[in-house]
Amino acid sequence: VAKKGNIIIGQSGGPTPVINCSLYGIISEAKKYGFEKIIGMINGIEGVLKEELIDLKCEKEETLESIKMTPGAALGSCRYMLNTEDPSDPNIKRIFEVFSKHDIRYFFYIGGNDSMDTADKINKAAQKAGYDLRVIGIPKTVDNDLVGTDHCPGFGSAVKYVATSVMEAGLHTESMYTSEPVTILVTVGRNTGWLPAASALARRDEIDAPHLIYFPEIPFSIEKFLVDVQSTYEKFGGVFIVTGEGLVDSNGSYLTARTSDVATDSFGHPELGGVGDYLKHIIEDKLGLRTRCIKLDICQQSAMHFASQTDVLEAALAGRAAVDYALEGKSGYMVAFEREPGDVYRLRTGLVELSRVANSERKVPRQWINEEGNFPTQEFLSYVRPLIQGEVSINIKEGLPVYTRLRKKRIK
Amino acid sequence: VAKKGNIIIGQSGGPTPVINCSLYGIISEAKKYGFEKIIGMINGIEGVLKEELIDLKCEKEETLESIKMTPGAALGSCRYMLNTEDPSDPNIKRIFEVFSKHDIRYFFYIGGNDSMDTADKINKAAQKAGYDLRVIGIPKTVDNDLVGTDHCPGFGSAVKYVATSVMEAGLHTESMYTSEPVTILVTVGRNTGWLPAASALARRDEIDAPHLIYFPEIPFSIEKFLVDVQSTYEKFGGVFIVTGEGLVDSNGSYLTARTSDVATDSFGHPELGGVGDYLKHIIEDKLGLRTRCIKLDICQQSAMHFASQTDVLEAALAGRAAVDYALEGKSGYMVAFEREPGDVYRLRTGLVELSRVANSERKVPRQWINEEGNFPTQEFLSYVRPLIQGEVSINIKEGLPVYTRLRKKRIK
Repeated sequence: VAKKGNIIIGQSGGPTPVINCSLYGIISEAKKYGFEKIIGMINGIEGVLKEELIDLKCEKEETLESIKMTPGAALGSCRYMLNTEDPSDPNIKRIFEVFSKHDIRYFFYIGGNDSMDTADKINKAAQKAGYDLRVIGIPKTVDNDLVGTDHCPGFGSAVKYVATSVMEAGLHTESMYTSEPVTILVTVGRNTGWLPAASALARRDEIDAPHLIYFPEIPFSIEKFLVDVQSTYEKFGGVFIVTGEGLVDSNGSYLTARTSDVATDSFGHPELGGVGDYLKHIIEDKLGLRTRCIKLDICQQSAMHFASQTDVLEAALAGRAAVDYALEGKSGYMVAFEREPGDVYRLRTGLVELSRVANSERKVPRQWINEEGNFPTQEFLSYVRPLIQGEVSINIKEGLPVYTRLRKKRIK
Repeated sequence: VAKKGNIIIGQSGGPTPVINCSLYGIISEAKKYGFEKIIGMINGIEGVLKEELIDLKCEKEETLESIKMTPGAALGSCRYMLNTEDPSDPNIKRIFEVFSKHDIRYFFYIGGNDSMDTADKINKAAQKAGYDLRVIGIPKTVDNDLVGTDHCPGFGSAVKYVATSVMEAGLHTESMYTSEPVTILVTVGRNTGWLPAASALARRDEIDAPHLIYFPEIPFSIEKFLVDVQSTYEKFGGVFIVTGEGLVDSNGSYLTARTSDVATDSFGHPELGGVGDYLKHIIEDKLGLRTRCIKLDICQQSAMHFASQTDVLEAALAGRAAVDYALEGKSGYMVAFEREPGDVYRLRTGLVELSRVANSERKVPRQWINEEGNFPTQEFLSYVRPLIQGEVSINIKEGLPVYTRLRKKRIK
């Protein structure tokens, strides 16, 4: 059945290794329903404002299959947020002008909580303006901090890569304990500790890295930290610590904020990253232990060569489900994952209101962190373990992965 | 034929992903000859000085096979150097005391140029003291900076991982050019540009990362750099730069030395790493382009999950060859790789004097860098491409690699 109107798809925020799996899921599902046009926004909502749109139906199936396994946002991404849903706002007017011109009736936005805020505003603006539009968000974040969903596409692959890197770097540093006993690995993740916590999967034996994990959910105590590090050092002869970017003190201030001027990104979030150096200096000053600080940076958001097959499949599932929900008439929701009860890992999709997701953050529950606040519990590990199962098979040519780009044929 | 005396093996300096392949090669070859004892030094020469020695013959074959594919130095490594070859020096006396006690007649040392200096001193001290000893070094460095060999075990795997990371991070950053147009990725490597240069393999199309590569072999010009970055930005809308840790100005001073106090490691080498931030500030100040700086750090020295199969095989070959040369009576040499002439990549082993390798560095030849000094030539890429061919198959359990440790049974 051919549906009325066209569909548009955008990607927004920092990419994950599987962000294009969701794009692929949307396109492949939409193709089943005979839409006249499947349109891509270049750089998310910025592409609508600038009318930089591309024809996704003309892309070869072979290209789309390859895009699915390519890191980075294939459409281009953005960090642009709408600041109102008021239909008289120039940006909102511009968006609906472009939508009307291209007869857009389905809007799919793959992103995190900031992006869900944008989708929410567009949904509300459409309602206020009386413009017939279905808006569905598709979750995407390695941080796993979106509310209303069991977990987020992108998280599993980041965990697999980070845990593997911790395992490998841990063995490396262990063999160098006599010259450099302490290592701090800083993952991405601002206000929630999902990703650093999940690196605990790397620790199969007590001696294995990581030994200590710190959470933004728990106010940081320098005194407790030094006791943790010293006692771990005495036990193993070295210490491997994992933390995210945003530890806070008992006043809720970021640790880095004390020593450096904190820049903000274009969403007004503080730009962090100095926590590793902060901890390094504490350890070297107070305990006299030489310390290395590692940041995996965007590699953990793009390492498709060691992505989780489960994550790849689920990200595509989220994309397909988004189309199905929109065709059922749903609007103003993000696709959510619901884990079926029982010992065997089974997932179904559901919906959560965009307004609930927008600008909210889901914290790691206190009961999933040990009493000491320096490691996750077994229950947490049981939650995260299914998400990293399975390896991907990527094409290799002359020893390196084969990735690709969309043709990006412009629509006028 | 059982040979007289026992053999001892040590690992020294920063590990590579394949450092244990060489260890495996030595052990498996030595086992063929019926040595009574195959002894491992815990933490390199420090293990001899402290008589911390382990029995490698009692390790199960299954463990050794798994150790071969495990990152980190399985015996433990060190950054300890001998400062003399004088037989009357207390350290040298102690070493030969331990050697005599355990009837050590074959000394194998897996390491870089600092480690080859240690091996060279031990070889010379043995000659002076009239102690019958065969000393053979096995090359190991991701920096590829050892003289007298076509390339070094460890380099190929590091290149494969770094080039893949550049490819993945490049696609990631490309999709974010509108919010952050410039990325600098800093590899390890102090005074030579082998590893950053080899990341150029990631660039199959002109638009692909990396766009610009800078070399410690060529004095850095800020003016030229800014022109390079600006013109690349105008062409592609973003820029991906790769460099090692040690760029120098026209006076030969490290770029970072200007702004920060330069610490030194325990070998007296300056501790670098600030070059990325240095370049980031230049770009942001002078060109107003937001810039991200990534360091892969020890991940590039430990990422066995994406190691080069060629490198794995060659590292083991170097280990086996070391034993064979020693049994032929050679001493005071490092195993070298010689590439056979012709279009098909074929390797044979050879020998280079330890004294030639010790504390020397092989630079990237000027003719392998383009005239502008900001990218390697095709000839260089033809040199490096064979070294990254083939993927390893590592054991995976519950989504993560299976690595192992030696039993480390102490020898008294």
